[in-house]
Amino acid sequence: MKKIPGRTIERLIGYRRVLCGQVEAGLENIYSHELAALAHVSAVQVRRDLMEAGFSGSPSRGYDVKELLDRVDRILDAPEGVKAALVGVGNMGRALLSYFSGRNQKISVVAAFDSDQSKVGRVIAGCRCYPVTSITDKAKQLGITLGIISVPGPQAQATADALFEAGVTGILNFAPVPLKARTGVFVEQVDIMRAIEKVAHFAKQ
Amino acid sequence: MKKIPGRTIERLIGYRRVLCGQVEAGLENIYSHELAALAHVSAVQVRRDLMEAGFSGSPSRGYDVKELLDRVDRILDAPEGVKAALVGVGNMGRALLSYFSGRNQKISVVAAFDSDQSKVGRVIAGCRCYPVTSITDKAKQLGITLGIISVPGPQAQATADALFEAGVTGILNFAPVPLKARTGVFVEQVDIMRAIEKVAHFAKQ
Repeated sequence: MKKIPGRTIERLIGYRRVLCGQVEAGLENIYSHELAALAHVSAVQVRRDLMEAGFSGSPSRGYDVKELLDRVDRILDAPEGVKAALVGVGNMGRALLSYFSGRNQKISVVAAFDSDQSKVGRVIAGCRCYPVTSITDKAKQLGITLGIISVPGPQAQATADALFEAGVTGILNFAPVPLKARTGVFVEQVDIMRAIEKVAHFAKQ
Repeated sequence: MKKIPGRTIERLIGYRRVLCGQVEAGLENIYSHELAALAHVSAVQVRRDLMEAGFSGSPSRGYDVKELLDRVDRILDAPEGVKAALVGVGNMGRALLSYFSGRNQKISVVAAFDSDQSKVGRVIAGCRCYPVTSITDKAKQLGITLGIISVPGPQAQATADALFEAGVTGILNFAPVPLKARTGVFVEQVDIMRAIEKVAHFAKQ
């Protein structure tokens, strides 16, 4: 399958949420303009994205919700699921462990790492905490491919490097510093401080 | 001053972080290529952004760090600061209250709101918690212009509407649903679930 760009993947994730809601509501078909309104994009965009994903609807009945959901799942998910580890179990790290728990069946956070000895060995928000010095070995051993970084800025790059060493191919970075990535590794930054500063700027006007 | 686009504002926030680090390190001047490398953008981009912000450096000495920082502050911040309120003091809301506390002198989270009566009246992560039914009155009374939403998806739009009623002009939305905005209100969504699903998609390849 050809590589689908990041923005399209983001929209497919949005469509999937809408489609799950439709399935829960017992609806079998959906028109592109309905899906578009619920996902807050244009109908043209929906049709273009779904065509890119190799799926087309019928002009008279729209898309079959279950078929489309199945198709989107197959594009987005690894069939065997993805194992993740979180590094930095401070307030934010702990909240993230709770937040991610059980929200997506295909993504399991199976290990946490922290430099604080009082956290090591404990189960925090359902997740066993290991010493930060063991990231590379432990992540390799557990088959982790996704790393979540919620350490302070100055430790972020060293944390990423340890995760790269373990063979991690995707990083979700909550630290407020850009990371030097490696070839073949996908890095997504969620910069909460930048987001609030941006809103504060536009709110003042 | 003319309106600076959102992407430029995001980069200016990034430059400000770098410049603060330079001030702490006692450095007085910085070349555009140095600033660019530290902020992970191109030097051409830095020069273009700073020109747009009405600032130009000297080819021989670069930019004066303190002057530039002062200029960026004046663009980004409201001189009198921005008062914010957070709605939804679950695990994530609580972590956000701690996270935002004291990180930017110009942004103070002065109130929290929750529907859970056992939280109302308490001070959580340094912030007084009020009943969710009082958002509009209380936010008006306190002069709040920035709302942070960390409620479950189904309550997000009603929360935003209550904040709009209070005269809030900026929303930072952590709920995993897009919001119907209002004219003159800036909405930024931080969609943590979408971010991890995106990383999981690209990590599997």
